[in-house]
Amino acid sequence: MFAATAATIVSGAVAERIKLSSFLVFTLVYVTVVYPIVGSWTWGGGWLADRGFHDLAGSTLVHSVGGWAALAGIMVLGPRIGRYRNGKIYAFPAHSIPLATIGVFMLWFGWWGFNAGSALSADPKATSWILVTTNLAAVAGIISSTALSWILAKKPDVTMALNGCLAGLVAITAGADVVTPLNSWIIGAIAGILVVLSVYMFDRLRLDDPVGALSVHLVNGLWGTLAVGIFDMTGNYSVLGQLFGMAAYAVPCFFGALLIFVVIKKTMGIRVSEKEELRGLDVGEHGQEAYSGFQIFTNI
Amino acid sequence: MFAATAATIVSGAVAERIKLSSFLVFTLVYVTVVYPIVGSWTWGGGWLADRGFHDLAGSTLVHSVGGWAALAGIMVLGPRIGRYRNGKIYAFPAHSIPLATIGVFMLWFGWWGFNAGSALSADPKATSWILVTTNLAAVAGIISSTALSWILAKKPDVTMALNGCLAGLVAITAGADVVTPLNSWIIGAIAGILVVLSVYMFDRLRLDDPVGALSVHLVNGLWGTLAVGIFDMTGNYSVLGQLFGMAAYAVPCFFGALLIFVVIKKTMGIRVSEKEELRGLDVGEHGQEAYSGFQIFTNI
Amino acid sequence: MFAATAATIVSGAVAERIKLSSFLVFTLVYVTVVYPIVGSWTWGGGWLADRGFHDLAGSTLVHSVGGWAALAGIMVLGPRIGRYRNGKIYAFPAHSIPLATIGVFMLWFGWWGFNAGSALSADPKATSWILVTTNLAAVAGIISSTALSWILAKKPDVTMALNGCLAGLVAITAGADVVTPLNSWIIGAIAGILVVLSVYMFDRLRLDDPVGALSVHLVNGLWGTLAVGIFDMTGNYSVLGQLFGMAAYAVPCFFGALLIFVVIKKTMGIRVSEKEELRGLDVGEHGQEAYSGFQIFTNI
Repeated sequence: MFAATAATIVSGAVAERIKLSSFLVFTLVYVTVVYPIVGSWTWGGGWLADRGFHDLAGSTLVHSVGGWAALAGIMVLGPRIGRYRNGKIYAFPAHSIPLATIGVFMLWFGWWGFNAGSALSADPKATSWILVTTNLAAVAGIISSTALSWILAKKPDVTMALNGCLAGLVAITAGADVVTPLNSWIIGAIAGILVVLSVYMFDRLRLDDPVGALSVHLVNGLWGTLAVGIFDMTGNYSVLGQLFGMAAYAVPCFFGALLIFVVIKKTMGIRVSEKEELRGLDVGEHGQEAYSGFQIFTNI
Repeated sequence: MFAATAATIVSGAVAERIKLSSFLVFTLVYVTVVYPIVGSWTWGGGWLADRGFHDLAGSTLVHSVGGWAALAGIMVLGPRIGRYRNGKIYAFPAHSIPLATIGVFMLWFGWWGFNAGSALSADPKATSWILVTTNLAAVAGIISSTALSWILAKKPDVTMALNGCLAGLVAITAGADVVTPLNSWIIGAIAGILVVLSVYMFDRLRLDDPVGALSVHLVNGLWGTLAVGIFDMTGNYSVLGQLFGMAAYAVPCFFGALLIFVVIKKTMGIRVSEKEELRGLDVGEHGQEAYSGFQIFTNI
Repeated sequence: MFAATAATIVSGAVAERIKLSSFLVFTLVYVTVVYPIVGSWTWGGGWLADRGFHDLAGSTLVHSVGGWAALAGIMVLGPRIGRYRNGKIYAFPAHSIPLATIGVFMLWFGWWGFNAGSALSADPKATSWILVTTNLAAVAGIISSTALSWILAKKPDVTMALNGCLAGLVAITAGADVVTPLNSWIIGAIAGILVVLSVYMFDRLRLDDPVGALSVHLVNGLWGTLAVGIFDMTGNYSVLGQLFGMAAYAVPCFFGALLIFVVIKKTMGIRVSEKEELRGLDVGEHGQEAYSGFQIFTNI
């Protein structure tokens, strides 16, 4: 499940321009080759675990692993047509805020099982602690991202609030069991600020990330892993130990994914045709409309 | 969580015309000042608990507390433009019944944790009992509200069925642990009837409540609290004791909320401009459309 | 709950042409008369259970029972207007793939309670086993149905992938406690193939099934029940014993449902008018649009 989750992170970053078949091949190789190797370094005991690296439920092992691959995918694919024109950035707004919100609710709910289940026990104290820190980080992420987007864009952007929620959840995932509730709130609040700034930063770098996967999963996966070193209350983990682990994962994940994406591009091709991209990949890749009849309206 | 839930009840009642910033200020003050005071009267021991007032999971402490504030908000704000014209009532239909239904499903699912979790124990007998009475009340509310709306409006209104579900859940929330399954069904069935009649009544009173929050949460919060006195199987609670508690909550919640809303209106203002209201608060308050491109269609 | 679930299976098969009142009468009679009789044959002990028939959570007792009634309903109602014209089959595409996907997610999540809860114990080994086999079958059904639809229709049909998920879940429901994880994967993969082939087959037979209820619930309810006899690891169940049980359920369920539908047709009528069907049953049966304003667009 955790390996599959890492792959889903990539899907949002490469959306609206990647060939479905190419994405499936990438997923298969990344999840069956790269993931098991790097996963074995920490969970269930491994050389990084022996060196005092801590990641409860995957700020690094799920979210950074997915985030590094997302970065590689975005670099190989390039931006969607029309996103960056004449030196300007054109936003492609989300087509349904209610559906995006329902998606975040489902992720939030699933996160309780993801984090608290990673206690690997039904001990009420341990699981309750994780549930409290997890929720506080999510809430703090919503508040800080909403506030910052309100300041920067003059109005509170709902998609920023939603990404702030996910950012807080990603950031608390490494240390939900070893930080205090108050510090989980701080970790989440910083995550919400990082996610907003990252969305602007990646756009300036011309890295087109349709759902903000880099800002949510990569940036806050790194932040959450580092935060264990800063806020750990058990005295077992250090900033240096966490930084070492973060670097150890960055290299094979980013370059492994880059290699897979480049080989796919050179062999079977990676991007849909310009005509298909403009029409929509629901029609081009699946032969069906996401919303039946929509093409008729938009062709008027 | 319970305090936040009380505030969300208000959001539906003041929707489509309140300034987001004003609503956030109201929420902050109501939840941090009024809620903790009145909450301390019953849960965890308090003077009302000592007088034999029973409210398992908040028919009063969540739903009436939110409902009284919703009533104050509606009175201060006034109706949406065009709802009541030339002595007639104009319905503003829900824009997506499927999304409304998903929302009710999520609430219903969450209610299991809300009510059964309020047993404050993992005792299988106690939690199972609450889950059974909770679900029976929801189902009974759906059946009675559907039947009554079928009789009154000639056709079964889906939004009435959805509100009937929530009405049954609100009404059983006070006594889910102290009534029999059969009586939980009766409580829910009466709730379903009350919610339909209340929707008509509040429209006649020109109290514009976009989602029926008063009918669901205030009316059935009161009914559910009273029902504990009628159907209690433990012999510990009385109609008079419940009525006393209901009155004790009504006064500070309604007048407290009214005071906050009036102060907000006099200082920072409470209602969006007429132009913004007609265009939609997604664009006005958030600078983005709930459904991207919708404005183009509606401007044709 | 299980009886109600059986009835919901029928609702998808008869959608978009049955009178709501007629469907409610059918549901009431089928669930209160037919279901309790056939249900008592297996669960909690009964003559089929005594003969060694096994059905953990209802491949037969829920899904086939619902599926046989769905078949009867489709035969009595006939196809929707325009589905089969001049010897050709006209597809009526799903109007919202995202909503259909959310529905499948909710069903999948609910299935964990449905199957694992049917262990009737909180034993960690027994419930974990069932959760693993249940999920593997769902995943295998998605993969095989996606692959087969990709081969047959040249593109991977999302609705086929969704139905493949449900098909795998239906098929594992009888034997989730008595098959190995590997065999649960095989059962699910075969289910995904059966559901795709069945959708084509029922269309050739001119049995108009808007959501593929027959392919998902009837065909794979039968397959899952049979699979217990093939893959049972306990040595208690046989192919012959399972076939006997499948036949024992088929006769009263199909003919019982057929009788109820025919009596309804002859008395209160069963199908909406042609005009109402073309306009949509949301307006005709409920007096409200599923999506407010949609009629205006489609009437342009």
